[in-house]
Amino acid sequence: MRILGIDPGYAIVGYGIIDYNGGSFSIVSHGAVTTCAGEDFPKRLKCIYDDLIFLIDKYRPECISIERLYFNTNTATAIDVAQARGVIVLAAETKGLEINEYTPLQVKQSVTGYGRAQKHQVMDMVKSLLKLKAVPKPDDTADALALAICHAHYQGSVYSKIYTEAKR
Amino acid sequence: MRILGIDPGYAIVGYGIIDYNGGSFSIVSHGAVTTCAGEDFPKRLKCIYDDLIFLIDKYRPECISIERLYFNTNTATAIDVAQARGVIVLAAETKGLEINEYTPLQVKQSVTGYGRAQKHQVMDMVKSLLKLKAVPKPDDTADALALAICHAHYQGSVYSKIYTEAKR
Repeated sequence: MRILGIDPGYAIVGYGIIDYNGGSFSIVSHGAVTTCAGEDFPKRLKCIYDDLIFLIDKYRPECISIERLYFNTNTATAIDVAQARGVIVLAAETKGLEINEYTPLQVKQSVTGYGRAQKHQVMDMVKSLLKLKAVPKPDDTADALALAICHAHYQGSVYSKIYTEAKR
Repeated sequence: MRILGIDPGYAIVGYGIIDYNGGSFSIVSHGAVTTCAGEDFPKRLKCIYDDLIFLIDKYRPECISIERLYFNTNTATAIDVAQARGVIVLAAETKGLEINEYTPLQVKQSVTGYGRAQKHQVMDMVKSLLKLKAVPKPDDTADALALAICHAHYQGSVYSKIYTEAKR
């Protein structure tokens, strides 16, 4: 199963593509889509959408695993991150991918076995599970890989939650 | 000048298309894109995007006028409205439209001349300016027409603010 993990944002969208077969992982590609602060916001959204379509066409993942958003502070930023997340989900839906979302707690739990794990512990497990020499940079990329691993662990389990309206 | 006003949402997206020439208004089309609560959220986003592309192709507006989002309460709903707004802005950007955003205060000010106007006063002015027999329903449609009128009044003025990154 090929999974595209996404850490949503509008300045940096982390992505990580992994294959998960027979309980073992291999990394296919990882990186970040970045947009310039000097660019109009609609152009940044279009850049994110176009790059996601490009990545999906190139690597042909079967599903995406994307972080569920929660915000308590800085509402202006929250709104823009959510707008960017909307176009990412649209790209996945347009390409017929299964769309799964997970909370930060679920990601920590599934990657380290402990929901209150520290960020560096999650990063170290990503490095170890994917047999990488170093933790990928930027953090958004490592977070995206953690999301992909999270879905690999959850998929097929009773905890797997396809992103449906029933949850709203 | 043909303007597409949009009141963003994910269950109901109000739209109103008007022509503004020589200081007078004429209405071209108005209505609402609605999505079903029982549908997966990604499918709802795609429905909104596809319908916006259809409207833009059919009526060929030169620009859109869309409400700027502010949220203080109910963050879960706020995030979903923002995700829907992202795909609406993407549709406009993809079709090369000029994208303008206004606050509720600016809309009230420009439509009624008074920033603290009541909702029914704004609705009545929309009806009057567009020579309609009744206030359009649902409210989202009337709000979208108010946004279009707002841009007509602001455009070309020093208050006109194209939606640029400089504002972020």
